Amino acid sequence: MRTVRIGLLGLGVVGSAVAKAMLDDRGMADRSGVRLELAKVAVRDLSKRRVVNLPAGLLTTDPAEVVNDPNIEVVVELMGGEHPAFDLISSALSSGKHVVTANKEVLAKRGDALLAAAAEAGKRLVYEASVGGGIPILNPISDDLLANRIESVRAIINGTTNYILTRMSSEGAAYDAVLADAQQLGYAEADPTADVDGFDALYKIAILGRLAFGASAPVDVIHREGIGRIDARDFRYADELGFTIKLIAAAQRTADGLLLRVHPSLIPLDVPMASVNGAMNMVEVVGDLVGPLWLQGAGAGPSPTASAVLGDVLRVARGIDGPGPSGSASIAAIPVAPMSGHVCQYYIRLTAADRPGVLARIAKVLGDAAISIRSVIQMDTDATSGSADLVIMTHSALEANMQEAASRLRGLDVVVELDNLIRVESYGPTA
Amino acid sequence: MRTVRIGLLGLGVVGSAVAKAMLDDRGMADRSGVRLELAKVAVRDLSKRRVVNLPAGLLTTDPAEVVNDPNIEVVVELMGGEHPAFDLISSALSSGKHVVTANKEVLAKRGDALLAAAAEAGKRLVYEASVGGGIPILNPISDDLLANRIESVRAIINGTTNYILTRMSSEGAAYDAVLADAQQLGYAEADPTADVDGFDALYKIAILGRLAFGASAPVDVIHREGIGRIDARDFRYADELGFTIKLIAAAQRTADGLLLRVHPSLIPLDVPMASVNGAMNMVEVVGDLVGPLWLQGAGAGPSPTASAVLGDVLRVARGIDGPGPSGSASIAAIPVAPMSGHVCQYYIRLTAADRPGVLARIAKVLGDAAISIRSVIQMDTDATSGSADLVIMTHSALEANMQEAASRLRGLDVVVELDNLIRVESYGPTA
Repeated sequence: MRTVRIGLLGLGVVGSAVAKAMLDDRGMADRSGVRLELAKVAVRDLSKRRVVNLPAGLLTTDPAEVVNDPNIEVVVELMGGEHPAFDLISSALSSGKHVVTANKEVLAKRGDALLAAAAEAGKRLVYEASVGGGIPILNPISDDLLANRIESVRAIINGTTNYILTRMSSEGAAYDAVLADAQQLGYAEADPTADVDGFDALYKIAILGRLAFGASAPVDVIHREGIGRIDARDFRYADELGFTIKLIAAAQRTADGLLLRVHPSLIPLDVPMASVNGAMNMVEVVGDLVGPLWLQGAGAGPSPTASAVLGDVLRVARGIDGPGPSGSASIAAIPVAPMSGHVCQYYIRLTAADRPGVLARIAKVLGDAAISIRSVIQMDTDATSGSADLVIMTHSALEANMQEAASRLRGLDVVVELDNLIRVESYGPTA
Repeated sequence: MRTVRIGLLGLGVVGSAVAKAMLDDRGMADRSGVRLELAKVAVRDLSKRRVVNLPAGLLTTDPAEVVNDPNIEVVVELMGGEHPAFDLISSALSSGKHVVTANKEVLAKRGDALLAAAAEAGKRLVYEASVGGGIPILNPISDDLLANRIESVRAIINGTTNYILTRMSSEGAAYDAVLADAQQLGYAEADPTADVDGFDALYKIAILGRLAFGASAPVDVIHREGIGRIDARDFRYADELGFTIKLIAAAQRTADGLLLRVHPSLIPLDVPMASVNGAMNMVEVVGDLVGPLWLQGAGAGPSPTASAVLGDVLRVARGIDGPGPSGSASIAAIPVAPMSGHVCQYYIRLTAADRPGVLARIAKVLGDAAISIRSVIQMDTDATSGSADLVIMTHSALEANMQEAASRLRGLDVVVELDNLIRVESYGPTA
């Protein structure tokens, strides 16, 4: 049986799970026909106590020792972040090693350059674990579904925000309280920005957009909104209308190119995504032949991520003596479409003066922007201030028109506040 | 770009969809880096009108012309059934062609022999489309999830029965009426046996059992029950208890080996499978690293099946100039466990005499078989006959004990009929 030597960059929780699964084997060599040998591991601190017992002499604090070791054939990068991961992956490729990584940030920001470096070196750069944790999604798109022209990919792809939104929904709790609790429980970081402001989901959809559509989108042009404005009331009102609220990352073909977007969305209660709760992830892929597929599983966590990392390592290791990647496949690159061209229904929550004639003025602003109203419901009222919550559901409208209308609504004297504007995901033939 | 010549056996609805997708291309060659050329198609009747326009001279009524054509590199078998598919696939392999098939029956019944023939010929035999239609499931198990020791695979994997059960559930309709309607609408065959009696699901779970666990199970040793005994009342009673009813095909590791089973099951309303409706399929895979994954999509239909067939064709075509399959991978074969060792909760529906003391006698039979009762509910009563529907939910019990108890219950004079005995699927830590 062929033995393949693996070098590991990073021994955090995921790295430890990967190392442990390699050392334990659990039938892996028999299943795959190759034996993985952990040859060297770069860590920041040699003296740190580890959850996994590594053979003596494996650890080093110098990542160059891994990247330049002539006996190492596959480098597994699990440090995360753009620096120094970018340089280390580049060095590993140029010194003739295949690279497996779970690093969404470096793939989203510098993926074009890294993939070009891999093609030039004739080595493989694979990154299934960077999106959706343990859920197989990148390889199915580039392999099993290859006969399909992919029409759209939409996903609940950040476990932290889905955990927070699920608890807000089920408990009627406030965002701040649930976030604080999630931080205490370890579901959210001390600095939760990367998750709650949508950066993590953004990186992942950028990777999916490149892989499934050939779209090269600088991450700062992708529309991104976090979940910080979602209020317990929004869940209550959405539920009355037959919806829940999820943070959605989407990449969809449109007439103008590929539209990439990350924002909270109203999701009809009867579609598969509506019941994806807690830290679970779900990716919906629509192909022209296969129709919609839904892939659901643990989107994070050491073991599920190790499953994806090792799946990639085994794939590379099994093909290691074959020809390199053909390099001949290419997806016709499509341009990135502006968010202003997005078309969807909208949920608008306003605090407005509770008196006759108010609705007429609001409706006029929307009508002037070519936005049709589907329903208006007066929800909670506040007798003291003489105001009421108005929830307006629109028919399908153009994002540019809606933003123009929203700006005018904010300027109306009868509108105390435009509290929230949430897009509605459409499914199948829509109004 | 490399051109790979494809021979097609069968031009029914799936064959036509495959041929059409190959002829239309739709960017497939660019995405994959190979060009598929449809070189020859074997059909039964040359004069039949086709939904796809094939270039003249492609059709033949002699499948041997496809299987023996020296210019054909990949044979796609879409005829279905054991004969003559087995001989044709064997011939194609021995004459040096790779084979892609969607044929669940021949793979379930003769898969060991065919896979051995492929290994001997050094050619690939792939069959993603044989299970779950367009849902990628076989390749993810043997590739993406290879680092995992698979613990269980459970699936809603027959669209016809799921369509029938979904309508019975939502409409409260009787089995016979829904079946007749499904036949009229084309969701069920004129002879519905293969679907409603569970043979189709059985073939698919046999394939999954071999692939994921290395278990070689003759199809006639796999426990199989169809949906014909499910009554509209069972849905009503199950719903009151928090369950729905689905036809489940399962392969699970147990202490005695791999337990394979196909039968209707009570499914808790809050798990992903409960909301898989109509002709949709879902496969749940549990791996030791990844935990549970749920893959959902169209389990049948020409286009989704073509997606899986062509995914396999492209995979084979892209690797056609590389080394053959390594052949070194092997899953430690595990024996097939007897159904009598299955442990689960049971739903028992009885028609019993509606008078005092009856429950005591029924409870004694169950208690004597070491079966604990979780709940008993008296449902509908029939004053004329003096009988009532009793629904008993048990705690976890051994199948052998339950069958013994069921036999004794049928012999009790106070039991008019043991109407149904349905197993309950367990999820996570159970009672």
